[in-house]
Amino acid sequence: MSVERIYLDHASGGILLPSVQKEMLRFLVGTQASPGGGHREGREAREELERSRQRVVTFLGAKDTEGVVFLSGGTEAIQSAVRGWGEAVHHGSIYLSEMEHPAVESAVRALGKKGFTLVRVPVDAEGRLKWGEVKAGIGKGLVCVHLAHHDLGTVQKISEARKFAEKVGAKLFVDATHGAGWVSFSVEESGADLVALSGHRLGAPKGSGALWIRSGTLWSPWLEGGRQEGDRRAGTENLPGIVGLGVAAEEWSKGGQDFRGDVAKSQQALADGIGRKIPMAKLHGPKLSTERSPAHLAFSFAGLEAESLALVLDRVGLAVRGGSGCVTREMRIPPAMNAIGAMPDEARALILFTLGLGTPHGKMEEAAERVLEGVKRLTAVLPV
Amino acid sequence: MSVERIYLDHASGGILLPSVQKEMLRFLVGTQASPGGGHREGREAREELERSRQRVVTFLGAKDTEGVVFLSGGTEAIQSAVRGWGEAVHHGSIYLSEMEHPAVESAVRALGKKGFTLVRVPVDAEGRLKWGEVKAGIGKGLVCVHLAHHDLGTVQKISEARKFAEKVGAKLFVDATHGAGWVSFSVEESGADLVALSGHRLGAPKGSGALWIRSGTLWSPWLEGGRQEGDRRAGTENLPGIVGLGVAAEEWSKGGQDFRGDVAKSQQALADGIGRKIPMAKLHGPKLSTERSPAHLAFSFAGLEAESLALVLDRVGLAVRGGSGCVTREMRIPPAMNAIGAMPDEARALILFTLGLGTPHGKMEEAAERVLEGVKRLTAVLPV
Repeated sequence: MSVERIYLDHASGGILLPSVQKEMLRFLVGTQASPGGGHREGREAREELERSRQRVVTFLGAKDTEGVVFLSGGTEAIQSAVRGWGEAVHHGSIYLSEMEHPAVESAVRALGKKGFTLVRVPVDAEGRLKWGEVKAGIGKGLVCVHLAHHDLGTVQKISEARKFAEKVGAKLFVDATHGAGWVSFSVEESGADLVALSGHRLGAPKGSGALWIRSGTLWSPWLEGGRQEGDRRAGTENLPGIVGLGVAAEEWSKGGQDFRGDVAKSQQALADGIGRKIPMAKLHGPKLSTERSPAHLAFSFAGLEAESLALVLDRVGLAVRGGSGCVTREMRIPPAMNAIGAMPDEARALILFTLGLGTPHGKMEEAAERVLEGVKRLTAVLPV
Repeated sequence: MSVERIYLDHASGGILLPSVQKEMLRFLVGTQASPGGGHREGREAREELERSRQRVVTFLGAKDTEGVVFLSGGTEAIQSAVRGWGEAVHHGSIYLSEMEHPAVESAVRALGKKGFTLVRVPVDAEGRLKWGEVKAGIGKGLVCVHLAHHDLGTVQKISEARKFAEKVGAKLFVDATHGAGWVSFSVEESGADLVALSGHRLGAPKGSGALWIRSGTLWSPWLEGGRQEGDRRAGTENLPGIVGLGVAAEEWSKGGQDFRGDVAKSQQALADGIGRKIPMAKLHGPKLSTERSPAHLAFSFAGLEAESLALVLDRVGLAVRGGSGCVTREMRIPPAMNAIGAMPDEARALILFTLGLGTPHGKMEEAAERVLEGVKRLTAVLPV
């Protein structure tokens, strides 16, 4: 028996936008000269590079074209932002929640080992950061805030993070690797000093990403060597990837409203279907609204074990993620579930449904039906 | 007037092997699931990832499949090797020449700032490292050696570097970002502990690369966050790039002899042509032999200025690099030319001709003719 698969793990790897794919193919043929070459082939490559930079600047709502640095993806953008700041300021305080993405958590812990003070920001039951409860640390400061949470989909109020950063005299780093495009955001309006972008969550290729740095921000390059990217990121430029990110950025600038609207409809249909068919299912994070990324749904199925349920769902033709989307070695249950105070049996039973460009609207009822089927199968083998 | 261009700047950006391009296209369509997903799509991606890893292991002449870590390119591989070692051992001595690639130089200098001792290895007039003249430093040690020099094309005797490393009890890092494929090398025979690879110099895409780590080597990950690559390199895997590198590695394992032979013929034809037509041209580095990478030719044209000559050559349809292939901020003349004791007027007049897969054999006489034309044009406007 073969059923048509339904893929709902877009956060960990989604499709390319057709226009991105088409444009990338142009750059996988021919000379493949590097933008650093002074010759005609190099100058042509540089023009493409700078066109892509301009497209990302426009997408980010930035003024300063020079602010964008292309690099290899979201993780590098995050590490480069946090550790590059740390390298430049030497000591100080870093403000972050207990439920940041492991890339942020790892980078901040690395600075913690070097003497930086970590100040934790509490969250409410739906994952909203509670800046009012945070005390100022010592020395120079970096406020780390995610635009949308990678598991819960909670959209953070960047304006509150900014107010806090201003109050304590800290710089503001926005991890937009989840949320960019899917959530309203402009670097100029946000007042952010550093912003991390992941290409593949925007329909651009894996291996693409960007770091935006506000002019004048104290920061040191993370990858040194050649003089690419204005001495801010060494290494031969991955032009096909960069061009792909540029095209995706332009698509979002023009059609982001439609992308968001389409996916929000799928999200609503899936949430309704699961809620209706499976009374035990519990939605975590904010209810469906502008406070939740349209690309994220996090349901727990208390009493079941997330990994097992994900495996059974795979067997019935539904690809989802069991547990957190990205965990570090010591995290056996999703940190976000601890942070929001979820019950242990819920925390162990978290399934992430992440939607993306290309998620088929009309399949969400069927997807919910498969979740029900999976829950039934797993419940049937459990001891009563 | 339009002439057909001749592109001889392959070291900074070369073509994709046709088989690489074809296989990559397969991975730029469809679900693009991440190898970390536990679902069918994820497992299929993981199989492709591990097939690519095996191909790179075979290419490297390694035994340990687990030794290969995929990352974003040569610069990241180098930084990850050097700084990851430094992060793990905390203090010690690093042995390197004054003419390493800026990625190596930057990484080592960063460790120097953190208290590591730098011990410089002298070179002879053709760029060969003179290990016999180096004294042992204190503490744990890292010997840095390039497989082939990025400007001069000098092939280093890795066995000598290894003997030195054994004598002083140091680990051996081989920067094979230039030289891999083009020069005979096997990680097992070499005794290397860390080896850096750049994808795009093997006909694989930009944005691909690998670090090989001998099992048991003290080393810390450079990019942390998610648990990809066995906790050794965080970040969503760039599967199209990795698959491209795997296919290129397999092509080299099978047909490397032919690739090297073909390019050596082009190199010989170009060197002969330039030598015959332009008496002032001086070849730097070893004479054409197995002591020189077949992909590199470095000529100086004493009295002319490298950048100006490269621009004039571009005008007559020849794309080459003037000066060093990759310089850091403070380097106005190629460090290698200083290191080998070149005269200042030669050092300022270095032109790099780098060949690669796809360099047209039959065009080398014409290329040499264009060099002559460029030299004549530039000489004509110089004061007599």
